[in-house]
Amino acid sequence: MASLLIAWQLTNKHVLIVGGGDVASGRIDHVLAAGAHITLVSPHDGLHPLTKHHLDTSDRISYHDRPFLPADLDHADMVLTAIDDVAVSRDIAVRCRALRIPVNVADDPSFCDFYFGSQIRQGPLQIMVSTNGKGPKLANIIRRKIEESIPRGAGAAIEKTGLLRERLKERAPGVGGDVGKRRMKWMVELCTAWEMDDLALLDDSQMERLLDEGWEHDIVPTPAELGVAPVS
Amino acid sequence: MASLLIAWQLTNKHVLIVGGGDVASGRIDHVLAAGAHITLVSPHDGLHPLTKHHLDTSDRISYHDRPFLPADLDHADMVLTAIDDVAVSRDIAVRCRALRIPVNVADDPSFCDFYFGSQIRQGPLQIMVSTNGKGPKLANIIRRKIEESIPRGAGAAIEKTGLLRERLKERAPGVGGDVGKRRMKWMVELCTAWEMDDLALLDDSQMERLLDEGWEHDIVPTPAELGVAPVS
Repeated sequence: MASLLIAWQLTNKHVLIVGGGDVASGRIDHVLAAGAHITLVSPHDGLHPLTKHHLDTSDRISYHDRPFLPADLDHADMVLTAIDDVAVSRDIAVRCRALRIPVNVADDPSFCDFYFGSQIRQGPLQIMVSTNGKGPKLANIIRRKIEESIPRGAGAAIEKTGLLRERLKERAPGVGGDVGKRRMKWMVELCTAWEMDDLALLDDSQMERLLDEGWEHDIVPTPAELGVAPVS
Repeated sequence: MASLLIAWQLTNKHVLIVGGGDVASGRIDHVLAAGAHITLVSPHDGLHPLTKHHLDTSDRISYHDRPFLPADLDHADMVLTAIDDVAVSRDIAVRCRALRIPVNVADDPSFCDFYFGSQIRQGPLQIMVSTNGKGPKLANIIRRKIEESIPRGAGAAIEKTGLLRERLKERAPGVGGDVGKRRMKWMVELCTAWEMDDLALLDDSQMERLLDEGWEHDIVPTPAELGVAPVS
C-alpha cells in the first residue's frame, strides 16, 4: 500500500526526540533544517558523535541526560523515538496516539503515523524517495540516480524564481482572477524557456530587466538578451 | 525554510475532503492510493469530471452533496480543503487545529500543517519533489527529469526485493543481532550488484535459487547465472 507523501511544516514547532544514537542524529538534522525546536531526551553515554555535534552547534535543542518521562509529551507537536527498548518506544507511541501527537517509532512501522524516506535537500528543493519499507537499499540507489539527474543550479533556480515571483506580485498585485492567471502563465513560460542553470544565475538588476522588458511586454527574453552569463 | 518530508500512513484511516473541483480530484487520487476511506463534501454542481470518475469507481468514498458542516470533522484523521471560499476554509483549519487533526488548505500555506509536492508513484516506489512553495513549475520540470532518470523496472524491482527479503526472513529468522546484520549485508550486496531492471524480472523459482545458491553460500550470483532474461 502506498503512503501519502507530504511536506510537514515545523517552523517554530516543538519536536520531542527520544534517543541520541545514529538514527536519532539523522532525525535531528532533518528536524533542525525544517525550523523546529527540539527537546532531546537520552542518557549521555548513548549519544552519537553527530548528535553531540548538533548539541554543540545548535541553539534550538534542549537536552536532557535521562530516559523518557511522560511529561516530555506535554508541549510536543511531533514525537520521534529511536531507542533499542521496544516496550518503552511502543508505550510512547500509544501515549502519543491518545494525545493525537504525530509519532514515528524507528524500525517499528505498525506504531508509526508516518515514515521517513531517503532524502535530498538542495536549498528550497527537497526530494524524498520512499519504497514504503520494501527496499531501503534501492531507495538509496534511486536517490543517487536522482541527484545525478538534477541540474546543479536547481536549488538556486528555485530560490531565484521564488524571488522573481514575489517582485512580480508587487508589480501586478491581486489574488487569483485574470492578473493571477497572467502572472502564472508568464512564470510558466519563463521556467519552460530557460534552463535551470541560467535561472540560477539571475541577479537583482537582471530580474528587474526581466520584468521591465519581459513581463511589461508579455514576452520572455532569452538569457543571452539579458546578459546572463553561461555556466563556466 | 525547509519542510520535513514524510510518508504519512493512511491505510483504513478516514480523510475528509471538502471541495470536489480540479485540485480536490488530485487529492482524492493520492488519498485513495494510500488506502484511506474518504468523506467527500461538496455541492454536486462543483464536481470535476475526475472527481465524478472517482465517485463512480471507488467504494471507499462517502459523498455528501452539500457544503461543509462542523460535524464532518467528528471522525476525521486528516482534513483537506480545496474550495474557493477563503473564510470557510480558514474556519475549517482553525477547528482542525483545536481538534489536533492534520489539515491542508489548498493555496493558503499559513493555514496548513503540511503541503503537497509534485509526486511520482510507480508501484511501491513513491517520490515527492517539494520546492517549499517557491517554484511549482520547476517542481514539475524536476519531476519529469526524475521520471526519465529512473529505470522502468524500479517499481517492480522494489516489489521483488521486498518479496525476496520476506522469504529470506522466513529462512533465517530473528530480529536484529548477527543474523539481521548478515541478511542486510547480503541484500545490500545483491541490490548493488544487480541492475534494477534485472531485479524486476526475478520470478518465484529464481528467487528460491538465489537463496539456495546465493544466501546459503554467502555469495551473490549474477543475473546470467540464474538465467534471468535480459530486458527485451
